[in-house]
Formats: sequence, C-alpha cells, structure tokens
Amino acid sequence: MSRLRVHNLCVSLDGYAAGTHVTLEKPIGDARALFSLVRHGSIHGIGGSDDPVGLDDVLTSTWAQNIGAEIMGRRKFGPQAGPWKPDDDWRGWWGEEPPFLTPVVVLTHHPREPLEFENGTVFHFVDADAPTALGMARELAGGLDVRRGGGPSTVRQFLEADLVDFLHIAVVPVTVGQGGSLLGGIEHVRELFDIETVPSASGVEHQLWNRRARESSASTPR
Amino acid sequence: MSRLRVHNLCVSLDGYAAGTHVTLEKPIGDARALFSLVRHGSIHGIGGSDDPVGLDDVLTSTWAQNIGAEIMGRRKFGPQAGPWKPDDDWRGWWGEEPPFLTPVVVLTHHPREPLEFENGTVFHFVDADAPTALGMARELAGGLDVRRGGGPSTVRQFLEADLVDFLHIAVVPVTVGQGGSLLGGIEHVRELFDIETVPSASGVEHQLWNRRARESSASTPR
Repeated sequence: MSRLRVHNLCVSLDGYAAGTHVTLEKPIGDARALFSLVRHGSIHGIGGSDDPVGLDDVLTSTWAQNIGAEIMGRRKFGPQAGPWKPDDDWRGWWGEEPPFLTPVVVLTHHPREPLEFENGTVFHFVDADAPTALGMARELAGGLDVRRGGGPSTVRQFLEADLVDFLHIAVVPVTVGQGGSLLGGIEHVRELFDIETVPSASGVEHQLWNRRARESSASTPR
Repeated sequence: MSRLRVHNLCVSLDGYAAGTHVTLEKPIGDARALFSLVRHGSIHGIGGSDDPVGLDDVLTSTWAQNIGAEIMGRRKFGPQAGPWKPDDDWRGWWGEEPPFLTPVVVLTHHPREPLEFENGTVFHFVDADAPTALGMARELAGGLDVRRGGGPSTVRQFLEADLVDFLHIAVVPVTVGQGGSLLGGIEHVRELFDIETVPSASGVEHQLWNRRARESSASTPR
C-alpha cells in the first residue's frame, strides 16, 4: 500500500522544527542552525561524488526512494501570505530545478493554476483538509509512497489525524528558543509508533518512527 | 569521479564473511546465520511496501544508489569450478530477474560470451586483475559508481590493491568458526579509512569505511 512518509525533519533540543520570521531571505526563519549539521546533498542517493558517506548521508538518502508525490505547506513553497498577486511570477524557492521531480500538493487557502517544470515537478495548489489532500497526493503518486514535507505545523496536522506511517526525525544539538513546535501538546501520538533511536558521529540523533500495524477495525482488540 | 563501493558485507564476530562448502543448495555455504539478521528487501530503496523501515533497511537501501556496474567473483555467480561445460544452461542464482539491473563483471579464469537479461543485467565474464577489472567496470558504468560484490576473497583483493573508496560492513553477532576471512592478514588497510560505527537495534553493528582523500602524488607528505 502507498504509505505517508516524513523525512529529514530537523528538530532542536528544545523541540522546534522551524524558526519564526520566515522571509524571502530566510526560508526557514531564524533557525538556520537547525539545518547546518545535516547535509542535503544526498537526497537523491549517496554516491556520484567524492564526498565521504556517513550515517547522516545514508539516512538523508531515503528522501526520494519510492516516493511518487509530496504534500507541503504553503510556507515551504514561498514566503507570501493571503491571496496571490496576479502579477506574481514566484515559482518557489528552487528556481527552474525544484528537487522534487514529482507532483507536489501545496496546501493553501488560495488555490491557483498548477505550475509545471521540465524536470517533472508539478505544483498543485489545493485548499483541502489532511485526509483529502492525502487522497489527492496518493492518486498523483501512481501507487508509490507520498512524502509529507515541512513545515512542522502541517506535519503536526497529519500526525494528529493519524495519517503518518513513517517519520524520520533528526534531533540536532542546538536550541532555538521559539518557533514551530513539532510535538508540543500532541505527545500522545508517540504511543502509536515503534521508535528506533540512532546516534550519529555528527552529534545528530536520528529517530525512525514506524506506525504500528493498524487494525482493520478500530474496535478490534490488539 | 566514479568510486568503488562495497555494500552490505556481512561479517561474523569471528571475522568471516562467507562460509565454506558452497553448493547449489547453499549459495553462501554453511554461514546462513550471517545473513539471517539483515533483510535485503530494500536494496532498491525503502518504501513501496508495508514493512517498517529500520536502520538496517536504511543502510541496505544504499546498495544501488548511483551504481552503474558491479564486479563479482565467479563464486557469487554460480557454484561451478573450472571450465564451463558446453551444455551448461546456468544463468546465475537469480532466475530471469537478477537484481543488478546493470552490467556485471564476473571475474573468472574461464571467459565466455556475455549473458544478457531483459531487466538490464548483463554478465561479462572476464579474466583480469583487480585494476583492469575496475577499469572495465568503470567504462561500463557510464560515469556512475562501481559496486564490488562478494565474496570476501575478492573484496580482500581490492582492499589490498587500495582500490576501495567506500565499504559498508555489517558485523553480525554470530560466530561461524571457519570460512572466508575479510581482513585476516591485511589489517593494515584499516589505517587508510575513516570509520564510523553505528549500532543497530537488531544487534548488528554497521561500519561505514570511507577512504581518506588520496594525494595526487604518493610521495606528497600528508
């Protein structure tokens, strides 16, 4: 079955997955330290370069494996809020080579026409709740898995709705002080998962959360 | 640059990477316990199934990433020794779906015509020393990395010749007693590598060996 996966979600020691004050110059707000330890050069696979391959790279390299679509929040697509301006030629943070290479469902209260790129990335702008968005992404994924991209508020939304099957968290040894909390107030979702914790030489602690097998009926005792 | 990588090399606590007595029924000899802890379902990437994703799967999933060719010993291709029999219709252990999907250089003292499969796998049978075989594999790989498959005696040969750039060893908590030793007598090669050690919840200890940067001239002091 097509599963919903979250990858490379960097969380600070004080529990924040993104900073505040996102601007055009600061795509992840004031939490840049969160991402400084995790290289993202291997999201399309290790190898093909002279870089050494460490555990962090190996874990990062799972990002695109058997993924057919992504769901992201509007904030990940761009810094704007409110209705799109008719003359806005914004096409995302990534120029003409977005790294996704698949359809991407962008959650927004302001739908607009899709944006297509030559490398296979297509952004669809959709006003939908989490289950509906997931159904659309599954259809676009053609049987492959769906990746839930950031930010933390939208990952939270999918965790609360129990739609996440796999979650890779990278706990980074920095504190951020304020920002978007991943699990604050929804700690109970942890009980739905088997969690494997893996320390890395870089100081990052990786957590692999696998949703326990779901019963076919909610009333069936385990 | 195209690098030579070794993946998922299972080694017992007493240092053996394969058992003795390889037969048609026992492709890895009497060392089956060596491989029982490491699932190989994810060699073409995690996801696309309902299986949970653990650290062992993540590491296994790097096997094919950016790989354009494999080099293997004849023993990995089949149990026969000596000249090929003219009426032998052996096409490898894997039936009509070998998992390689790329050219494969099979090292043998008895060259023969290549064997092609519809899924992209092509076995080339070559009598060559390690550097020559690597040169041929690099050409076949079209700029991508080359994977060195088992068994241990051929991996040893490439380690001794300092041709290996990356090595992933999975130390499995079993003893085998006898078999093919990976590092016995060539322990000094370890000093050429930076080694990251990663424990797994399964009891397997993973080691990521990255060859330190090679100087352009051997006489240049570090």
